[in-house]
Amino acid sequence: MDVAIIGGGAVGLLFAAYIAKVDIKPTIYTRTTRQANLLVKEGLVLQKDEHIERYAVDAVPFEHFSGSEDIIVVAVKQYDCRAIVERLKILDDAKTILFTQNGMGHIQLLEDLKRHRIALSVVEHGVTKLVSNEVTHTGIGRIKLSDYHQSESLLGLLKEKLASPDFPILLESNWYKMIAEKLAANAVVNPLTAIYQVKNGALLHPFFKKNMEQLFVEVAATLKFEDPEQVFKQILLICEDTKDNTSSMLADLNNGRQTEVEAILGYLLHSAKKQGLPVPLTTFLYNSIKGLET
Amino acid sequence: MDVAIIGGGAVGLLFAAYIAKVDIKPTIYTRTTRQANLLVKEGLVLQKDEHIERYAVDAVPFEHFSGSEDIIVVAVKQYDCRAIVERLKILDDAKTILFTQNGMGHIQLLEDLKRHRIALSVVEHGVTKLVSNEVTHTGIGRIKLSDYHQSESLLGLLKEKLASPDFPILLESNWYKMIAEKLAANAVVNPLTAIYQVKNGALLHPFFKKNMEQLFVEVAATLKFEDPEQVFKQILLICEDTKDNTSSMLADLNNGRQTEVEAILGYLLHSAKKQGLPVPLTTFLYNSIKGLET
Repeated sequence: MDVAIIGGGAVGLLFAAYIAKVDIKPTIYTRTTRQANLLVKEGLVLQKDEHIERYAVDAVPFEHFSGSEDIIVVAVKQYDCRAIVERLKILDDAKTILFTQNGMGHIQLLEDLKRHRIALSVVEHGVTKLVSNEVTHTGIGRIKLSDYHQSESLLGLLKEKLASPDFPILLESNWYKMIAEKLAANAVVNPLTAIYQVKNGALLHPFFKKNMEQLFVEVAATLKFEDPEQVFKQILLICEDTKDNTSSMLADLNNGRQTEVEAILGYLLHSAKKQGLPVPLTTFLYNSIKGLET
Repeated sequence: MDVAIIGGGAVGLLFAAYIAKVDIKPTIYTRTTRQANLLVKEGLVLQKDEHIERYAVDAVPFEHFSGSEDIIVVAVKQYDCRAIVERLKILDDAKTILFTQNGMGHIQLLEDLKRHRIALSVVEHGVTKLVSNEVTHTGIGRIKLSDYHQSESLLGLLKEKLASPDFPILLESNWYKMIAEKLAANAVVNPLTAIYQVKNGALLHPFFKKNMEQLFVEVAATLKFEDPEQVFKQILLICEDTKDNTSSMLADLNNGRQTEVEAILGYLLHSAKKQGLPVPLTTFLYNSIKGLET
């Protein structure tokens, strides 16, 4: 099977490395020629603890993407999805496309891709990219996969091929629940760690935890969870399990990058408004992150 | 007239300096012997722009306070007021006591002092203390004075004696309005600058300004302003006038000191609860500052 990874960020490189690990040479489609050249010349480096592995990969800038691969992993940020979808929409053959984004913003784009098989995933690994051909696997979590449109047969195969103790794969039957629960975790953990400038574990301190609860009540109402208590427990577990991690939103702000606030809080605000739900904290935090971005 | 200043912080030293300027030698009651000795030995230094003045003052630790002065300026932080009031309560002679605190927390203590004449003040100057016998007057604002209990005759005299272009004094007829408006400004500017880690002027950026508005709606409802639009305009003016200033709450957090969050947001939460008003943002920000303090 031929695999394309679109996006040379931390998540794209993580997928590429664990695919290369099982002797499938992926093609990584990057934003810059510089990164593509480095990946081809130096290989893709996967670092975990003190252990370093180096994999041969193909890599070219995305402008050269022709859609020849059977499986396409879309690993760009939410806010770059639209341009990628425009390109995938006009491919001749039916492909299997796996989306890895946080938030719900990309879901509305998928109607345009119904000629393809579509799967969604949630990435729970701790992962950072320090050099453009190196990915550091800082925390072993899980990849959750769920079918969105006619991709069931492939998901079992993917799990069988790729799953390992360092890269566990979980198949989920309900894509909405899977994505919504990840969205809730992102909506609570990301903005609070970003405004307090703290690692994930600090949110468990009593005063911050009260605010997590207060914010989660709005998020749960907006996303209509059937069992909000269970979802909130999961979020507390994530804070515990990733207590020394810097959230992506805090890292983005500290590095002067655009955050995923639109995909996370922007989506929730929009959804709450449509439902006529008052969400003062979601609004406040959305404005806070937008202000801190500028 | 003999004047006691209780508290050797920035506000206490500012009052002491402008009193010394008109040839009244104040006695400053400090927390530490070290500060008192330094003030007596080196004098009190007032710095404004490049200009430095040095005044002779008396200074002793507060444990030696006997209440011999006619006028007593209480310039300790809100959270230290109770101990001072306990001491003032048992003075034999009737004094004129001027309180300089932010917030409303000290007002409930004043019932115990009705044998004295009591005035309240609001300090709108920008002022910092870098060395314990030096105060830097970074921004010329105003002192507002208002009678709380039988102090009217003195307030006119104080204004006449002390007011100058660098130290304007305004007499206010309604102490509640004066204190409540300052409380509202503190409740909006302090916590937002503290969580965003920005100077006061940054709150005027569009996204932060939306949050100021949203928070002010809760504060105005809690304090029952007759003309909230006018009060909010004043707060915007304060942000503009003090745009390069670091708020006291942000400075306290950055220096690992206790903040005045209880006197400001704690009071508002308590008052809103008594009135049955929902105040989600006030609650969120109270918990945020309490969490950041620890």
